[in-house]
Amino acid sequence: MSIATYPIQRVPHHDVVGTLERGCQEHGLDPLANKLAELRLFLAHDLDEVDRAIASVGLGAEDAAGDPKPRTSTGLEGQTPAQESARHLLSQDGKRLRPIVVALAAHVGRGFSEAARTYAVAVELVHNATLLHDDVVDLGARRRGADAARVIYGNAASIFGGDWLLVEALCRIQRVGNAEVLARMLEVVKEMVIAESMQLARRGKLDTSVSDYFHIVDGKTASLFRWAMFAGARAGGVSDEGCEALVDYGKKLGVAFQLVDDVLDVAGDPEATGKTLLADLGEGKMTYPLLCALERCPELVPLLEAVCAGEEVGPEVGGRVASLLRSSGVVDECLALARRLCEEAIAGLSIIPDGVAKSALVTVARATPERRR
Amino acid sequence: MSIATYPIQRVPHHDVVGTLERGCQEHGLDPLANKLAELRLFLAHDLDEVDRAIASVGLGAEDAAGDPKPRTSTGLEGQTPAQESARHLLSQDGKRLRPIVVALAAHVGRGFSEAARTYAVAVELVHNATLLHDDVVDLGARRRGADAARVIYGNAASIFGGDWLLVEALCRIQRVGNAEVLARMLEVVKEMVIAESMQLARRGKLDTSVSDYFHIVDGKTASLFRWAMFAGARAGGVSDEGCEALVDYGKKLGVAFQLVDDVLDVAGDPEATGKTLLADLGEGKMTYPLLCALERCPELVPLLEAVCAGEEVGPEVGGRVASLLRSSGVVDECLALARRLCEEAIAGLSIIPDGVAKSALVTVARATPERRR
Repeated sequence: MSIATYPIQRVPHHDVVGTLERGCQEHGLDPLANKLAELRLFLAHDLDEVDRAIASVGLGAEDAAGDPKPRTSTGLEGQTPAQESARHLLSQDGKRLRPIVVALAAHVGRGFSEAARTYAVAVELVHNATLLHDDVVDLGARRRGADAARVIYGNAASIFGGDWLLVEALCRIQRVGNAEVLARMLEVVKEMVIAESMQLARRGKLDTSVSDYFHIVDGKTASLFRWAMFAGARAGGVSDEGCEALVDYGKKLGVAFQLVDDVLDVAGDPEATGKTLLADLGEGKMTYPLLCALERCPELVPLLEAVCAGEEVGPEVGGRVASLLRSSGVVDECLALARRLCEEAIAGLSIIPDGVAKSALVTVARATPERRR
Repeated sequence: MSIATYPIQRVPHHDVVGTLERGCQEHGLDPLANKLAELRLFLAHDLDEVDRAIASVGLGAEDAAGDPKPRTSTGLEGQTPAQESARHLLSQDGKRLRPIVVALAAHVGRGFSEAARTYAVAVELVHNATLLHDDVVDLGARRRGADAARVIYGNAASIFGGDWLLVEALCRIQRVGNAEVLARMLEVVKEMVIAESMQLARRGKLDTSVSDYFHIVDGKTASLFRWAMFAGARAGGVSDEGCEALVDYGKKLGVAFQLVDDVLDVAGDPEATGKTLLADLGEGKMTYPLLCALERCPELVPLLEAVCAGEEVGPEVGGRVASLLRSSGVVDECLALARRLCEEAIAGLSIIPDGVAKSALVTVARATPERRR
C-alpha cells in the first residue's frame, strides 16, 4: 500500500511517532526523522479511527465506525465514577504506541481491518486499565502531565475504573470472535498483574537482580507489545510464521521501550518527560540503569538506598545523579543495550516481505532508543 | 440422580447449606432443615471437588481433577503479594453459594461435569475478586471473621490480587470453549463494576431511590447468580427454555439473597453474622431496609444521617436501631419481600422437570430468607 493513497490529515500531536520524530530532529538524525514523518502520514487515518473510538468508550453511543455499544441489561451504564475516572485518563495525551504496533502488524498483512481497529482500541484500554490501578498502588499524583484520575475522582473510582476498562477491552476482543487472540490477551493480563505484583514484592529493595528486572519488564510491558503484534498480525491474515516473527519483534521492542523509559527516569530531561527524576526509585522500584549505577558508581549507594527507602530528595539531587550516570557511561550502556534489542527485533523481521509496513516497523525500532519523552 | 448414590462425606462446616440448615432448625422449620440436610449430602461430592480446586488456585500444581495449571511464559508465577492476598481470602470460610447454584443448575441437566466444575470454581473466584477490590474501596478491616487481605498484605496486593483472580477465572472459563458462557461472564463483570461504581457515587446519600437500590443489587449481586445458573445449565446441556427459566430463578434468588444480607446488616445477630450492625450504612451505603426505616421511623432520620455521613456510633446504638426496625415491622416487611421473590423464583421453575435438582432449588429458595448469617 503506497503512502500516497493516504490523505494528509491532522495527526494528534501526542502520538509517539511525532515525539520520536522531534527527538530524532533534535539529535541530528534527519534521515530517521524523515522516515518518521512518512510513518505519521501512513498511520494518520488508522490512528484517527482509533482516537475516535477511544473518545466514545463508555458513552453508550455508537463508536466511530458504527459498532453499536452493547448495553447491559440493568441499564446501569452512564457517568459513574469508574467511567469518569477512566475517561479522564483516556482523554489525556497518550503515546498510542500499542495501537500503532497493532496497526503496523496488520499492515504486514491485508491492512487495518475492523478487527485490527478493535484490537488497537482494546490494547490501549488494557494499557490504561493498568495505569489506573498502578497509580492507586503507587499513590501517583500526576499522569500524562495532568492530575492522576485518583486525585480527581478518588482511589475507589480508579480501582473500579481500571476494572471497567479491562473488561470493556475483553468484551470488544471477544466480539471479534477469534478465541486464540482472546486467550492470549487473558494470559497477558495475568502476566502483567503477576509482574506488577512481583515488582511490588521487591519494592524498596536495592538488591534486585538483572534477571528479575528483565522478567518483570517482559511481564509488565513487553507482554502487551507481544499481544499487540499477534493480534494485529492475525487480523491482517499474516501467516503463522510471520505472526511468530512479529511477536518476537514486539517482545524485543517492548523491553527496549521500557529500558528507555527507565533511562529517562534517571537521566531524562524533566521538561520533556513531564516527570521528576528518580520517580521510580522514589516508589521503591529498582531498574536496570540503577543496577548499572550501583556497580559503576559505588559512591551513589547510600543516596540511592535512601531514595529507595522513600526519603524525599530535591530535584538538584536528581540532576546530580543524572550527570553522574551520563559521565560514568551508565546512560550510554543502557541505550546501547536498547539499540541492540531493537536491532535484534529488526533482524527477526527478515522473513517478513519488504514493503511499507516492514520499513515502518524498522523505523519504529530504530527510533525507540532515541526518544526523549 | 438419586441421593443414595452419593457417599456421605465430610461437608465443610462453612458452606451456606449447613448455615441455612442450622438457621431453619433454630427457627423450628424442621421439614426445611431436613431437606437441607439431604441437599448437603447431594452436593457433598461436588463441593468437595470445588473446594479442592479452589485450594490449589495459583499453586502451579495440577488442580484437584487433574487440569494442568497453565504457566505463563515469563516464569513469574509463584507467591507474589497478589497471589498471597487472594489465597488468604480464598482460604477463609466462604459460603460457596455461587458454586452451589452452578452445581444445582448442572444437575437439572446431565449433572456436575468437568465444565460445570470449572464454572463453579470460576464463579467463586470472580466473587472473591470483587471482595478484594471492595475491601480496598470500603477500607474494610474484617472479612469472613478474619483480617481482610488488605490489612495483612496491603491495599496494593489486594488490588492486584483481585485483578489476578478475575483473569484467572476468565482464563478457566475460556478454556472450556463455550463462547456464550464467556461472553455472558464478561458482560456480568461489567455490570458488577458499574453497579459498585454507582453505589460509590451514592455513598453518603440517604436519598437513594428504591429503584436505584434494586438496579444496584441486580448489577452487583444478582448478575453473578444469573451467570451461575446459566453456566451450570449450559454445562449440563439444559434446553434453551430451561436455561432461561434457571437464569430467571438466579436473578430472583440473587436479589433475595442480597436483601437478606441487608436485613442482617441492620437487624442481624452480630455474633452470628460476624459483622457489626449498620456496617453498610457506616460505609455510606443505603439499603432497602434503611429506606423502609426512613419512611416508618422518621425519628431515626438524624441518627441514620449521621452514621451515613461517617459518624461512628457504639454497638448499643446499632442494637437500639435493630430493635426499632423489628418492632416497627421493617424487618418483617423486608423478609416478606425476600420470601415473595423466592416464591416467584420457585414458580418460574414450573417448566423444569421434577427431580432431585429441582427440589433442591426449591429448598435453597425457601431457605434463603431464613438464613441468619
